[in-house]
Amino acid sequence: MKAEKIQQLNPNVSVDCVIFGFDFEQLKVLLIEREGNFEDKSQRLALPGDLIFNSENLLSAAQRVLEELTGLKDIFLKQVGAFGEPDRISKETDKQWLRSIRANPDARVITIAYYSLVQITDYAPQANSFATSANWYDVREIEDLAFDHYSILRQALDQLRMELQSRPVGFNLMPPKFTLGQLQKMYEAILGKSLDKRNFRRKILKLDILAPLEEKQQEVSHKPAQYFMFNEENYNKLRESGFDNFGF
Amino acid sequence: MKAEKIQQLNPNVSVDCVIFGFDFEQLKVLLIEREGNFEDKSQRLALPGDLIFNSENLLSAAQRVLEELTGLKDIFLKQVGAFGEPDRISKETDKQWLRSIRANPDARVITIAYYSLVQITDYAPQANSFATSANWYDVREIEDLAFDHYSILRQALDQLRMELQSRPVGFNLMPPKFTLGQLQKMYEAILGKSLDKRNFRRKILKLDILAPLEEKQQEVSHKPAQYFMFNEENYNKLRESGFDNFGF
Repeated sequence: MKAEKIQQLNPNVSVDCVIFGFDFEQLKVLLIEREGNFEDKSQRLALPGDLIFNSENLLSAAQRVLEELTGLKDIFLKQVGAFGEPDRISKETDKQWLRSIRANPDARVITIAYYSLVQITDYAPQANSFATSANWYDVREIEDLAFDHYSILRQALDQLRMELQSRPVGFNLMPPKFTLGQLQKMYEAILGKSLDKRNFRRKILKLDILAPLEEKQQEVSHKPAQYFMFNEENYNKLRESGFDNFGF
Repeated sequence: MKAEKIQQLNPNVSVDCVIFGFDFEQLKVLLIEREGNFEDKSQRLALPGDLIFNSENLLSAAQRVLEELTGLKDIFLKQVGAFGEPDRISKETDKQWLRSIRANPDARVITIAYYSLVQITDYAPQANSFATSANWYDVREIEDLAFDHYSILRQALDQLRMELQSRPVGFNLMPPKFTLGQLQKMYEAILGKSLDKRNFRRKILKLDILAPLEEKQQEVSHKPAQYFMFNEENYNKLRESGFDNFGF
């Protein structure tokens, strides 16, 4: 935010960020807690989001709000879509909370949601502004959230899974060298289901985005697995062009 | 619109509709003309769109606005996304036009775009409200439009083409009985490119959504082609579940 410029909030338009994180084991999502009289924790938890300024575009707003609330910056965000049910702020606890922080708490707000997928170890969220905490939560354990954020989360997850069917992912999620088993674990975490090992290997190798290394796993009790790295050029080319569906 | 209820327009949020139409030959799009001092016709042409009422949801607003401007109703609309560049209303002619019809012509407007694909012969557009005409235009001939509507159109077209890769389309576009050549023509019109005949036939038949009829074409100079109809149950099932990519 530029201090020298008076920024005017747009009372009708907000942005919300669904930041998925992978920690080599599970798919998580970044949520903030807010202060207030919430019946249970699920209602205190929300996606990082806030009103946009009238002078900024939607993507910049999403990046700014994400940084203000959680400290995360330089995150590549993609739009999920607009969520604009007139009654999307229907929970009494949410209304009370809005009255405590907004100039126009009763204005109808349409929110534009963005999503991303990052490696958790690359980012240490730091709560700020009206967020009292900012942490990663296992996606499978979330059953509800503030406002309509749960349905936004579900739609973002659908979109991420669809993306996985037509673009390679994982370049920023895997370590520089990894086994096919580790890569499969990432796909399984995102898709929320187990995959057939042979099928996965066949399909992922066919994409021609992996380069085998001479090196093998060491100090493991089972047969040591081959290490791979991404072929960055092929990976980026395929991310650009997309492919004919993974069929997972 | 219910006359007994005072509807309040939201000055910051609009909807725009990208209605694609197929006429057995080409892919077209429904555009309206507006009155005003526009330099050329492309600037007078726009997607049907307008501000939402504060009491309606986004989808209902899109349906209402589409009907008000073009007479088209009961159209199944899908969201393209939100378009919110602060300078999206930058053309002087658009600004002038807005001053002639809006209470808050300088308010920043974020628009939520929707799209659909219909059979042109099923609908006869009728211009109304601030639309002075409502007609179908060949998508390939459009090079610019009012506001940022040209980029909205391009993004909706990308989305339609992506949809075509994972869902069957055409149930509402083809006549009750049709040849594979006619069906291929529809896919080619939407994708904007020629397809290999053998490949197309193999892939489309593999989906198991077509039922061959006893009947063949009559009174044609070439070898008469087999007629098909959609298997409605399989078609709907596959539309619901999606498939593993057409690979066109």
